[in-house]
Amino acid sequence: FDLPANVIYLDGNSLGARPKRALEIADRVLREEWGDGLIRSWNAAGWFDLPRKLGAKIAQLIGAENGTVVMTDTTSVNLFKCLAAALKARPGRGVIVSERSNFPTDLYIAGGISRFLGQGELRLVDTAAALADALRDDAAVLMLTHVDYRTGAMHDMAELTALAHGRGALAVWDLAHSAGAVPVDLADCNADFAVGCTYKYLNGGPGAPAFLYVSPRWRDKFEQPLSGWWGHAAPFEFSAEYRPAAGIAQFLCGTQPVLSMAVAEAGIDLMLESGIGRVREKSVALSEAFIALVEQECAGQGLALASPRDPLVRGSQVSLGHEHGYAVMQALVARGVIGDYREPGILRFGFAPLYTRFADVWDAVAALREVLETCAWDKPEYNRRNTVT
Amino acid sequence: FDLPANVIYLDGNSLGARPKRALEIADRVLREEWGDGLIRSWNAAGWFDLPRKLGAKIAQLIGAENGTVVMTDTTSVNLFKCLAAALKARPGRGVIVSERSNFPTDLYIAGGISRFLGQGELRLVDTAAALADALRDDAAVLMLTHVDYRTGAMHDMAELTALAHGRGALAVWDLAHSAGAVPVDLADCNADFAVGCTYKYLNGGPGAPAFLYVSPRWRDKFEQPLSGWWGHAAPFEFSAEYRPAAGIAQFLCGTQPVLSMAVAEAGIDLMLESGIGRVREKSVALSEAFIALVEQECAGQGLALASPRDPLVRGSQVSLGHEHGYAVMQALVARGVIGDYREPGILRFGFAPLYTRFADVWDAVAALREVLETCAWDKPEYNRRNTVT
Repeated sequence: FDLPANVIYLDGNSLGARPKRALEIADRVLREEWGDGLIRSWNAAGWFDLPRKLGAKIAQLIGAENGTVVMTDTTSVNLFKCLAAALKARPGRGVIVSERSNFPTDLYIAGGISRFLGQGELRLVDTAAALADALRDDAAVLMLTHVDYRTGAMHDMAELTALAHGRGALAVWDLAHSAGAVPVDLADCNADFAVGCTYKYLNGGPGAPAFLYVSPRWRDKFEQPLSGWWGHAAPFEFSAEYRPAAGIAQFLCGTQPVLSMAVAEAGIDLMLESGIGRVREKSVALSEAFIALVEQECAGQGLALASPRDPLVRGSQVSLGHEHGYAVMQALVARGVIGDYREPGILRFGFAPLYTRFADVWDAVAALREVLETCAWDKPEYNRRNTVT
Repeated sequence: FDLPANVIYLDGNSLGARPKRALEIADRVLREEWGDGLIRSWNAAGWFDLPRKLGAKIAQLIGAENGTVVMTDTTSVNLFKCLAAALKARPGRGVIVSERSNFPTDLYIAGGISRFLGQGELRLVDTAAALADALRDDAAVLMLTHVDYRTGAMHDMAELTALAHGRGALAVWDLAHSAGAVPVDLADCNADFAVGCTYKYLNGGPGAPAFLYVSPRWRDKFEQPLSGWWGHAAPFEFSAEYRPAAGIAQFLCGTQPVLSMAVAEAGIDLMLESGIGRVREKSVALSEAFIALVEQECAGQGLALASPRDPLVRGSQVSLGHEHGYAVMQALVARGVIGDYREPGILRFGFAPLYTRFADVWDAVAALREVLETCAWDKPEYNRRNTVT
C-alpha cells in the first residue's frame, strides 16, 4: 500500500487505502487495453468477464459457493435486485423487516421498492431482540447489515437467517462492513442473498463496483427486474426478447465501469493472499489494544465505548461516543489522525490490518488524549460541516 | 487522442478512443486523490459532486436546461429509473410503446419493469409509422432510441415527442448514439426523460457511467424507486427516513465509481471545446465520402446500404449489409480496419470526427474492396465468434 507520510489512517472502514499495484493495473487498462486494444479489449483483455472473474475471487472471502457472486453496479442497486427477487418469491407477503439502525441506503431502497409496488411495507425494529416479533406471516424478507456501520456490532448471521427461514421469510445480508474485515460463511449460514462493497476493507478504490450473492438453492428460480443486456443468456444475439442468463449472471444489468472494476482487483488479491483468518486475528488485537489504551489514557474525558466490548461480536472498527464528537474528529484529522464521524456523536476508528500497525494505534490514542485535554470545542474550524464527513 | 499505429478505428460508436488527458486525470485520482487524500477527497477533490458537475457539462451537449442532468450508473439502470417515474406519473395506463428494433437492453428493462409491477406491458411496433396506432389511451410512455444502433437511422425527436404528448404519454429518449454525434435539443423537443452513454462518441472510457435527464417541467414531481442515499436530501444526516433531494439529484442512487467517472471528463471536455456543430458537419462529410467511395469502389460486391441515404436522418455511422457480414468484418479487422458487426449481417462503420480523418475513410474503403475481392468467407478464422463482437 502507498500511504501518505504523517498520516495515521483509521478510516479504511469507509475508504480503503491504495494498493501499490492499483497504479500498474490502471496504466495497463488505460494504455494497452483502452488506448491500443480499443473495442477488441472487451474480449482480448477480458473486460466482459470482469464481473464474474472478480466475483469468483470475492466469493472466496465470504464463504460463497462457486458461481454465486458477481461484482457489479452499486450496493444500493444490487440490494434492489435482491429485494425484488425475494419479494416475488414470497407472493402474498410483502413486508421487509429490518432494523432502524441499518445503514440508511438499505432502508431507502427497501422503502422505494415497497412504494413502487404499492404493496407491502418496510417494518423497522429498534433492537435485534424485536426481530422475532416483527417476522410475522406477512414478512417476505429479513434485511440486515451484518456489521453495523455506526457501532461495529456484529449479528449472528446463521442464527438470524434460521429465524427468518423459520418464519417463511428469506434473508438478505449487507456485508459492506464485513467483506475483508471478518470471516463470513454465507453457504454455512444458509443466507439467501447478500450484497456488499469493495471500496472499504477490500481496498478496491473510491466507489469501486459492489458485489451480489445469490444462494445456489435459488439458482435460476428468480427473475430480477433490472433485466439489462449483460444479464441476457446471449447478449450479442441482440434479440428483442429477454432470456435470462443461467445462474448468477442474470443479476448483471448494464455495461460496467471497466477502469474502476479492473483496478479493484489489486485490493481483492491482497486480501486473498493474506487470508481473512490472519486478518481477523490482527484486527481483534488492534482493536483490543485501542480500547485498552483509550481506557488507560483518556479516562474521565467524556468518551463512551459505542462498540461491543466483546471482540467476538464486534467488526473491525471501534466507535466512541463524545458530546462534541464532530469537533473531536475534526481536531484529530487536523493532527493527521484520520477516522470519521457519524451522527449522533460517534467517532469511528477503523482497523485495516493489511496496513494498520500497532504503533498507529498507540500514536492515535496519544493524539486523541492530547485533543481531549487541550481543545476548545466551540472553535469554528472544528465545527465546519462538509458535504461528506 | 492516442490511437494505435497501423489501425483505422471506425468503431467510436461502440467504444470511443482514449483522450491523452485521460492518463493525467487517472494519475491524479490514483496518486493524489485516492493515495494521499484518501477519505478527505470526497470533499477536497470534489468526488461527491462529480455526477452533477459532469452532468452539467453533458447537459450543454444535448440541449438540456441547467440542473437537469446527472452522470451516474449505467444506461440500463437509468432507464429503469425514468420508466418507473414515468409509469407512476400516468396511473391507470401502464403500456410502454417502443420499436422492436430498439437496442435490446432498453426492451429488456421495459419488459422487466412491466413484469415486476405485474401490470402494463411492452408494446412493440415494427416500423416508426406504426407508433401512432400503438399509442392508444393505455400508453404511459413512448420509449425510443434517437439514433438506431444498427442502421444509424435518426428519429425526429420533436415530432415523436409531440405525438406521445398528444396521446397523453410521456417521451423517454435513449441518446446512446446521439450524444457527441449529432446535435440534440432536449429542451426544444419537449422531451420528458432521456438517458445516454458516455463511452461512445463522448470518449469517456470503457463502461464510463451513463447520464440521465429529467425535464424541469417534472422537477420534484416524480419519485423513482432506486432511492439510494446519494439521492437523499441530506445523505450525511443518516436519517432512517428517505427524503428525496430537490431536483435532478433525486435520480442518484449509490456510490459512484470515481476513477471511471473522473477520467470521462477528458472526453466530455474535448467535445465541448470542439462544439457539436462542427463535429456534426465533419461527421456528415465523412459519412457522405464513405458512402460515395463504397458505391464507386465496391459496386457489385454484394453490399447494400443499411443506413438512410439522406444524411439529415442519419447519425454518425454508416451500416452496410452483406451476406457474410461477420466474416467480412473479421477480415477487415485482421487488416487493421476496425468497425464492428451486428446481427443480422450488418457491418457498422462509425465516424468520430474528433479523431477520424478523411484519409481513414479512403484507406478503409480500399481495404474493404480488397477484402471483398480476395477473401474466401468460409475460412474458420473469419467465422470464429467471440463473446463480444
